[in-house]
Amino acid sequence: MSWSDPILLPGTANPAFAASLAGELGIPIAERVVQRFPDGELGIELREAVSRRPVVVVQPTSPPVADNLLELLGLLDAARRAGAERVIAVVPYFGYARGDSRHGRREPILARVVADAIQAAGASHLITVDLHSPVVEGFLTIPSNDVDPVPVVCAALAPVAEDVVVVSPDLGRARTATRIGATLDRPVAVLHKRRLSGGDVEVQRVSGEVDGRSCLIVDDMISTGSTVVEAMRALEAAGARPAFVVAATHGVFTGGARAALTDARIREIVVTDTIAPDPGAWPPTRVVTIVPAVAAVVRETLGG
Amino acid sequence: MSWSDPILLPGTANPAFAASLAGELGIPIAERVVQRFPDGELGIELREAVSRRPVVVVQPTSPPVADNLLELLGLLDAARRAGAERVIAVVPYFGYARGDSRHGRREPILARVVADAIQAAGASHLITVDLHSPVVEGFLTIPSNDVDPVPVVCAALAPVAEDVVVVSPDLGRARTATRIGATLDRPVAVLHKRRLSGGDVEVQRVSGEVDGRSCLIVDDMISTGSTVVEAMRALEAAGARPAFVVAATHGVFTGGARAALTDARIREIVVTDTIAPDPGAWPPTRVVTIVPAVAAVVRETLGG
Amino acid sequence: MSWSDPILLPGTANPAFAASLAGELGIPIAERVVQRFPDGELGIELREAVSRRPVVVVQPTSPPVADNLLELLGLLDAARRAGAERVIAVVPYFGYARGDSRHGRREPILARVVADAIQAAGASHLITVDLHSPVVEGFLTIPSNDVDPVPVVCAALAPVAEDVVVVSPDLGRARTATRIGATLDRPVAVLHKRRLSGGDVEVQRVSGEVDGRSCLIVDDMISTGSTVVEAMRALEAAGARPAFVVAATHGVFTGGARAALTDARIREIVVTDTIAPDPGAWPPTRVVTIVPAVAAVVRETLGG
Amino acid sequence: MSWSDPILLPGTANPAFAASLAGELGIPIAERVVQRFPDGELGIELREAVSRRPVVVVQPTSPPVADNLLELLGLLDAARRAGAERVIAVVPYFGYARGDSRHGRREPILARVVADAIQAAGASHLITVDLHSPVVEGFLTIPSNDVDPVPVVCAALAPVAEDVVVVSPDLGRARTATRIGATLDRPVAVLHKRRLSGGDVEVQRVSGEVDGRSCLIVDDMISTGSTVVEAMRALEAAGARPAFVVAATHGVFTGGARAALTDARIREIVVTDTIAPDPGAWPPTRVVTIVPAVAAVVRETLGG
Amino acid sequence: MSWSDPILLPGTANPAFAASLAGELGIPIAERVVQRFPDGELGIELREAVSRRPVVVVQPTSPPVADNLLELLGLLDAARRAGAERVIAVVPYFGYARGDSRHGRREPILARVVADAIQAAGASHLITVDLHSPVVEGFLTIPSNDVDPVPVVCAALAPVAEDVVVVSPDLGRARTATRIGATLDRPVAVLHKRRLSGGDVEVQRVSGEVDGRSCLIVDDMISTGSTVVEAMRALEAAGARPAFVVAATHGVFTGGARAALTDARIREIVVTDTIAPDPGAWPPTRVVTIVPAVAAVVRETLGG
Amino acid sequence: MSWSDPILLPGTANPAFAASLAGELGIPIAERVVQRFPDGELGIELREAVSRRPVVVVQPTSPPVADNLLELLGLLDAARRAGAERVIAVVPYFGYARGDSRHGRREPILARVVADAIQAAGASHLITVDLHSPVVEGFLTIPSNDVDPVPVVCAALAPVAEDVVVVSPDLGRARTATRIGATLDRPVAVLHKRRLSGGDVEVQRVSGEVDGRSCLIVDDMISTGSTVVEAMRALEAAGARPAFVVAATHGVFTGGARAALTDARIREIVVTDTIAPDPGAWPPTRVVTIVPAVAAVVRETLGG
Repeated sequence: MSWSDPILLPGTANPAFAASLAGELGIPIAERVVQRFPDGELGIELREAVSRRPVVVVQPTSPPVADNLLELLGLLDAARRAGAERVIAVVPYFGYARGDSRHGRREPILARVVADAIQAAGASHLITVDLHSPVVEGFLTIPSNDVDPVPVVCAALAPVAEDVVVVSPDLGRARTATRIGATLDRPVAVLHKRRLSGGDVEVQRVSGEVDGRSCLIVDDMISTGSTVVEAMRALEAAGARPAFVVAATHGVFTGGARAALTDARIREIVVTDTIAPDPGAWPPTRVVTIVPAVAAVVRETLGG
Repeated sequence: MSWSDPILLPGTANPAFAASLAGELGIPIAERVVQRFPDGELGIELREAVSRRPVVVVQPTSPPVADNLLELLGLLDAARRAGAERVIAVVPYFGYARGDSRHGRREPILARVVADAIQAAGASHLITVDLHSPVVEGFLTIPSNDVDPVPVVCAALAPVAEDVVVVSPDLGRARTATRIGATLDRPVAVLHKRRLSGGDVEVQRVSGEVDGRSCLIVDDMISTGSTVVEAMRALEAAGARPAFVVAATHGVFTGGARAALTDARIREIVVTDTIAPDPGAWPPTRVVTIVPAVAAVVRETLGG
Repeated sequence: MSWSDPILLPGTANPAFAASLAGELGIPIAERVVQRFPDGELGIELREAVSRRPVVVVQPTSPPVADNLLELLGLLDAARRAGAERVIAVVPYFGYARGDSRHGRREPILARVVADAIQAAGASHLITVDLHSPVVEGFLTIPSNDVDPVPVVCAALAPVAEDVVVVSPDLGRARTATRIGATLDRPVAVLHKRRLSGGDVEVQRVSGEVDGRSCLIVDDMISTGSTVVEAMRALEAAGARPAFVVAATHGVFTGGARAALTDARIREIVVTDTIAPDPGAWPPTRVVTIVPAVAAVVRETLGG
Repeated sequence: MSWSDPILLPGTANPAFAASLAGELGIPIAERVVQRFPDGELGIELREAVSRRPVVVVQPTSPPVADNLLELLGLLDAARRAGAERVIAVVPYFGYARGDSRHGRREPILARVVADAIQAAGASHLITVDLHSPVVEGFLTIPSNDVDPVPVVCAALAPVAEDVVVVSPDLGRARTATRIGATLDRPVAVLHKRRLSGGDVEVQRVSGEVDGRSCLIVDDMISTGSTVVEAMRALEAAGARPAFVVAATHGVFTGGARAALTDARIREIVVTDTIAPDPGAWPPTRVVTIVPAVAAVVRETLGG
Repeated sequence: MSWSDPILLPGTANPAFAASLAGELGIPIAERVVQRFPDGELGIELREAVSRRPVVVVQPTSPPVADNLLELLGLLDAARRAGAERVIAVVPYFGYARGDSRHGRREPILARVVADAIQAAGASHLITVDLHSPVVEGFLTIPSNDVDPVPVVCAALAPVAEDVVVVSPDLGRARTATRIGATLDRPVAVLHKRRLSGGDVEVQRVSGEVDGRSCLIVDDMISTGSTVVEAMRALEAAGARPAFVVAATHGVFTGGARAALTDARIREIVVTDTIAPDPGAWPPTRVVTIVPAVAAVVRETLGG
Repeated sequence: MSWSDPILLPGTANPAFAASLAGELGIPIAERVVQRFPDGELGIELREAVSRRPVVVVQPTSPPVADNLLELLGLLDAARRAGAERVIAVVPYFGYARGDSRHGRREPILARVVADAIQAAGASHLITVDLHSPVVEGFLTIPSNDVDPVPVVCAALAPVAEDVVVVSPDLGRARTATRIGATLDRPVAVLHKRRLSGGDVEVQRVSGEVDGRSCLIVDDMISTGSTVVEAMRALEAAGARPAFVVAATHGVFTGGARAALTDARIREIVVTDTIAPDPGAWPPTRVVTIVPAVAAVVRETLGG
């Protein structure tokens, strides 16, 4: 191994993903210490020389979002200051991507704040997976790649997609649902949501034919599960069979998700491994790896 | 009230401090919404026009440090984008200030990362209280002020400082302890610490006369309480009386602090209100307000 | 008039709008020279002192887009270098806003390039009207406001909106169409487009009831007119009456628009005055002014 | 060819120059799409991976100046975002270079505005030819090279320079004229201009001996041709023979140039190929290539 | 005096100029300490609150150039960090302005390096007098003004300019000489220099009529005096009378200048007070003040 | 030697150090011209192509501090503009490092001003030796290394350290003194200083056993020598033998140092070669080279 060989520097948010990516790329994992002190401060130290080596930092900003983000910034800054030739940030799940515009309100644009912080801390390239909003790339001036989850998700769904209708739970996901439908050769339906008071939404209309069909609900992330629950309600009301498969790129599964999704109508939940699964994840979840797709992009970025 | 009158925009980390500061300054508090969604994302909206008004954002980055920091960044960005004439960040407790240098190790400099993020998010002036490291000011290029806690702390301690020795628990605090001793007209002693393995420290030497005296231990912050406990042990070993008063600017009081400091030898613990006190704070803590001192600096900054 | 009174600096792209805005605000228009030399270079000179005065630069980046953008940059830089207290860029039509993301392709993000250039040239505030993409705000770090065209457009349409269905020609405009429908108390329909080869699109589906109704087609801009023509075709195929009103915020009307829109079925075309109308504008176009709405935002920004 | 081999990305302003440069360098030309939409917006897409490759973007900002500049910015941004290792901007003709200072007037400094935009869009090196003002380099902080046209121009002129006087049409070009005279071993004369009202200038004085001699007028660019016409008038008035050769680095030839320069006294006009020649260029123009000189600098920059 | 009244912060390079400017503007002078330690380091402390006040820093970067520049940077940074509302840098003599371009050589552009440092240290406006190169303004993005010395110089010269020829010692000063000639209603001559080996130059040609005339040599600065000496030699050779007046904006007068200029042919040397005169300045030098002209520009900048 | 081989570009402040470093690294020294003109301006020209080569600029900012700093900035800018692949600044002695914070006073932070200027002028990596304050690294965002002088100093001191007490002349140096004591296996004492009026200090207390011992006084720099003289006085008063060895990393030796340190009690003064020794250095000084330690860090940075 020559001195300028790349090295992978893992954060603590998803060590299994990082290890798997290092294996796929055939590059070593840097020894490092990440400590959280009782008062919430952070101690980070690289235990390996990274001078003139490309460093691949791996850290999704999954919950606890702010803690994982700060750790990401610390890892980037440490690698940059230690003389890394380049610092490639692999952020499989990019939190705060929803805050991408203000729509006339007096709000922050948090996705820009976060993008600025990542760039200022020394990232020279950002690699994400299925960004909630593609405009985040424009908040950066460094190069970036957003890995497309459709091939991996479709490969995982092929065995369970016979006779289903692919359902997008809202307009924002319609384009991806259409691509999944085309790949699986299945019809597509789109739900139209209406925002009620508070954070609640209600499906207003089902556009597409679901009567008597099983449905495959596809989304970018599953958070509390309420979107899925509301989609199932509306689809059943429109005549769908009470047999659902749910697929999402990011399995965020926050508090209450397990209860909400423990539902006999759900045959299976498929997510990728961008977020470290909760150790006690319950039976119906199947996790498929998106590491090879990410590795391909990292490899191109490293200039193999 | 004219259109360009200042307005105070409080974060959620210490609403009592913010309200008190607004009262002291005689300026209104902006209506705003701060929401934390189940997946950890943050929703912030100002409900009041701030165009061309100086906005005073108030948010310590006390634990949970990263969450409070992100909220601070969001508030700054929202105020700036809404057209504030200036955005004055009042951060009574500035977390991450300990990470101010690397000492030859491959570490990040988190205080610089945080300073960059605060400045990038739109702060035009930073006001802090008793920064752990004065060099943080040099990490910024915007103007800044660090409020001196000594007058407030000395006023609070005067009634209980008769016949005590003022003790600095380490070399870093010796200068402030000397100033407190001079103000209270009391002698000073300094403890010399040695770092053991892990985060533990041991006092090696007591420099100054403590035999048969009550001690007033002064520090910038009380976190786990272990520094205080170790100081009492060393002072007693050096002959001090088992009667201590403890004073600190920042009452962080993380997990275990209550147990560690529930000690019959401690007569009183005095802290200022930079950090919102835990609702169930136990008897011996006395909180004195530093709001008037902060208000004086904000007032000068506003140019009122 | 005191020395720090604001002054308006008009570009050459829409002098009538600039004059009207100055009148509405009651502020003077700066004398200036803008020359285009035979080799395409630009000569700009302010003939009035702007030192310590807020300067309101007014220039839409309508076609010729690049020339008008460069002139805008020159005006901003001249005002900034001459010591303006602030430089408020009023860009009623913001070109290049469509280039806001890459969707996985190797493309530039032109909206970010343009936003960076505007900010680098010295703009301290950007005011736009009905931005094609709200995320452009996130490409800036200066404050910005996007003026809502709905009240003006609805006031203009009220007399001709009896019994019509409000039609959004694509999903992207559905939200605004819904707001217009609610204001006018009329039902709404949404067309779903499919992109064919080249720049052509085809309407795939009409969602909403249009049978036997007159339609009011609403969009953010009318460029070649092809979107309107295709919408009319699809609406008639769905049973709509051959009687249309077309309303858009920005009347770009590029080559061929006149021919395409000279159509007996079109009762009226309503646009605002963000773009200087072609002198030979043909009969059916009615131009309503959005200047008062823009003036209200400028006034708030000036802090008057 | 290895992965990190350089690639040339041509703009549309001078494809022949770009192709010739690629040939001279022996590097491939990237497939790309550049579209101008009817409303003046720009669509750019690279059809080739450029990750970790040095990319040489080639685009003079000749008329239409602003359009070519925006296209240049778009190409730079696309290459940078796609992960190019470096982006070398070859701008054989750099427009706006005349706007390099204000001389006490309230003007923009357009050369700085343009330099900032080029650097902000991602250029890591700028290569120009015979910049109108050498100070443009100081408006950048990236490395730059300005290719010297004298060797190429002299080689082209040698056959027609027998017995001529080399004439600089103004003081600004005197230094280059002197270098050309020295290389060709011919005497030199300098014209002193006076600026009349408007853009017109008049030659006040001829400094040097021209009586009874043929003259070789040398300049950096020929735009409207009026400088050449006025120089011929003054030289003839000073006794020169009515037989002129005109040489310039940049053949801008704007409207009216053909008529002005269709003159029996002009034996030949020599320009280099920095600007794509008008297809219907009239007989007396001889275009010599400066591509080998540019290629030598690019090669050094590539570090080949 | 209200809180936001401006205050003048003088450096040590020209205290008389600073005091005179404060008097002319009617603003107070800030108490401050400037110390140079034995090891060459610099200690600066403001002894007065400048929060929210415009601060006018006055410091020419005359020899010792680097020391005075560093002190200027320190004063700017101190004022900015102390919360000044704006920091106006008045640099009556701007050193390093000659290093404004590279002309194809591998050199630094020191004027840009210095401009960047001044802007980075917190200057919000730069005021200079008779900059050696007007392009320095383009190296900044903050507003700037260059004070024209011609009116002051002409008023001082009127009594001694009868029957003289105004002489520009090189081409670079021809424009200013022409303006002075027009104001004084006197003819103008221009010398053409040739650079010999080393720093020496030789006048090659006198353009204009000087035979039998007294000459008034005008330049932007007098440094070693060698330019003046060489000009006198060439003018005498061209028939001028051995009676000269020399006028320059900046009296740098470095080592050897006194000897070189102690010459019976020189009737008088006129300079302005941009640079603090050497205490032992010898008889023929007359210093005229340019303070009122600078004050007029500062006053406009303050927006009084 | 291939084209991308590194090259060393020496400033004029310590040519022997630069030559020795080049020899140790086995890399060539670039030909260059550095001229100081009589008016204090600076002329720098590289006489060698550095395009795509890593350039190692070597220049301590020893007295005259400001001149050497400006020369450093000029060398960095020249190398960057000439297309260097990277520019590594080796600044063996970093002046202004004492100005790292304000401690509540209205002062500049000169170490930040200098760090900003170095980074802005094009440094991509900074290598220093024994920085007075480690926080300077945080004033930069580029990578940096501070070379540890302890191994070199201890090797030099071993022969003369028998039976000595290692003495830190103040608290700031206690940590390094402890490391030196541990390496040499000698006891350590620490002096506690008190600042008197002006720049004078007085030692208040000697902490540690020195009675009847020879002392080895260790510091980061020797400037005027007054610290050493005061330390000797206090140590003798505490019973130490009148036999001292003094060791420092940086031998600044400003005016008066020679007189102050010509003292029979001083057996030897040991310094490293970070600063070029005064040619007439007097007998007791022994200079040991730190070049190999610096070379090791440069080599790692070059990625050799």
